[in-house]
Amino acid sequence: MRVVECVPNFSEGRRAGVIEKIVEVARNFPGIKLLDYSSDRDHNRTVVTFVGAPEPVVECAYAMTGEAARLIDLNCHSGGHPRMGAMDVVPFIPVSGVTMDECVDMARRLGERVGRELKIPVYYYEFAATRPERRSLAEVRKGEFEGLKTAVKTPGREPDEGPAELHPTAGAVAIGARRPLIAYNVNLNTPDVQLAKDIARAIRASGGGFVNVRAMGLLLKDRNVAQVSMNLLNYVDTPIYRVNEFIKSEAARRGVSILGTEIVGLLPVDALLDAAAHYLQVENFDRRQVLEIRMMEGPGHEGE
Amino acid sequence: MRVVECVPNFSEGRRAGVIEKIVEVARNFPGIKLLDYSSDRDHNRTVVTFVGAPEPVVECAYAMTGEAARLIDLNCHSGGHPRMGAMDVVPFIPVSGVTMDECVDMARRLGERVGRELKIPVYYYEFAATRPERRSLAEVRKGEFEGLKTAVKTPGREPDEGPAELHPTAGAVAIGARRPLIAYNVNLNTPDVQLAKDIARAIRASGGGFVNVRAMGLLLKDRNVAQVSMNLLNYVDTPIYRVNEFIKSEAARRGVSILGTEIVGLLPVDALLDAAAHYLQVENFDRRQVLEIRMMEGPGHEGE
Repeated sequence: MRVVECVPNFSEGRRAGVIEKIVEVARNFPGIKLLDYSSDRDHNRTVVTFVGAPEPVVECAYAMTGEAARLIDLNCHSGGHPRMGAMDVVPFIPVSGVTMDECVDMARRLGERVGRELKIPVYYYEFAATRPERRSLAEVRKGEFEGLKTAVKTPGREPDEGPAELHPTAGAVAIGARRPLIAYNVNLNTPDVQLAKDIARAIRASGGGFVNVRAMGLLLKDRNVAQVSMNLLNYVDTPIYRVNEFIKSEAARRGVSILGTEIVGLLPVDALLDAAAHYLQVENFDRRQVLEIRMMEGPGHEGE
Repeated sequence: MRVVECVPNFSEGRRAGVIEKIVEVARNFPGIKLLDYSSDRDHNRTVVTFVGAPEPVVECAYAMTGEAARLIDLNCHSGGHPRMGAMDVVPFIPVSGVTMDECVDMARRLGERVGRELKIPVYYYEFAATRPERRSLAEVRKGEFEGLKTAVKTPGREPDEGPAELHPTAGAVAIGARRPLIAYNVNLNTPDVQLAKDIARAIRASGGGFVNVRAMGLLLKDRNVAQVSMNLLNYVDTPIYRVNEFIKSEAARRGVSILGTEIVGLLPVDALLDAAAHYLQVENFDRRQVLEIRMMEGPGHEGE
């Protein structure tokens, strides 16, 4: 089972007809499963989530980029979210049986075609970045569509693929590879929000904690419960169970315990298998021992 | 994703040509994935594991039963393992998105056809049993092929389906539904095998412990480590994490801790998702939050 997730963001969150036409590409694409899409009117932006094997995912992302370029004119777009292109951002995310290097390779294949065939300039970001300062999407997108029209011609801002100037209506697109983001919240059995804020500071990268964790403390007013709300940016290097144990220990030192936790949205099965194997102390655990994973695999390996 | 596991046992473990012909049925069956098969010469018996959606699993099990009946003559069979039929036992095991009741229904559908079309008497066992004493496979098979020839006509031993006497060469078949069996071992950081035996007695059903646990204590000689070796017969009612915590507590009371654990063979993903959700204290965890599970589902549910 080889699964890549793709989460394209395009610059239309209001015109239902346009949104549907672009989403329709993924809905009907052979080998692709559309998992989710949501539009924000204020941001004037739509985020789509689809999954599949590497080949169809690249093909589908290419088709969506073309459809967005055909239907969206950035010169007529305004919204609260930074953007530089009709198809603004396309990240490839390894989920199952695929490495980050393969996702970088997918980004490069898509970028090359988008530059050459659609004549849209491409910037590679995060794991696909060609230079350190382009790892950050915010850096790549600086100036947005309007500012990039001239900035694209300044040294250091040259696109990685495609023409040396913006597409007149479709702008530019950022294509990258990144880890799945896991939204994980820990509820504490206290209404003391300051305690949650203190723990959030201790666990997040900017406070001296884990490199791949963003965190903040807040109060769940309806339950009167303080919460450490987190984004885990790399569950492979910084697994959920370490985050959980760290918070448990920090809370205990303040006389507080964990009431419960929340996983918001989707996550890869490996993130939870890792947690199970950790807590159960399983020696030499192999994900192929999971019936459903073995079942999804190609032929082979029989008669042991 | 609807997945049922089927583990047919047939009475041939020596003649490679016969074994291959019967296994071949599952290998080539549309909608079926053959996961494993292994033959034992001493037992003169082969155990096959295949998975698929309910419909093809029943069809495949029927085809294999027919093939076994065609190729095996119980009158010429001897081996160390109790048996009463060419196809001796067919259990259906719910893995994903399928209830035990549905597996019982599958057993009944297969049994009805085997009795009517193949003229082989059928006994339902475990969850599919029609009376309490037939829940136990050992009870159903008592007397084996030779003894059942006459026993089948005595009151209380009537088959659930098919003719009232054994098939002259294929005997009878036990068809049932059961939980997946998980082989789970816990290694202790002591060479004291008596301690492992004591804990095994405390945790197993026959010693006053959990109803769905079989356990014994043994010494891993090459590592000089005592092990509690278990079969978990129902991971839904008696989850792995409770077994693990029970052993941890019993070991600690004797000054010993868990060195590591082993999962032998295959297990359903839910058994490990449950453990992860337990230890991470996840509130309202939904297995559809797992990307791979969502992906395997049929169409629907988009645009949240």
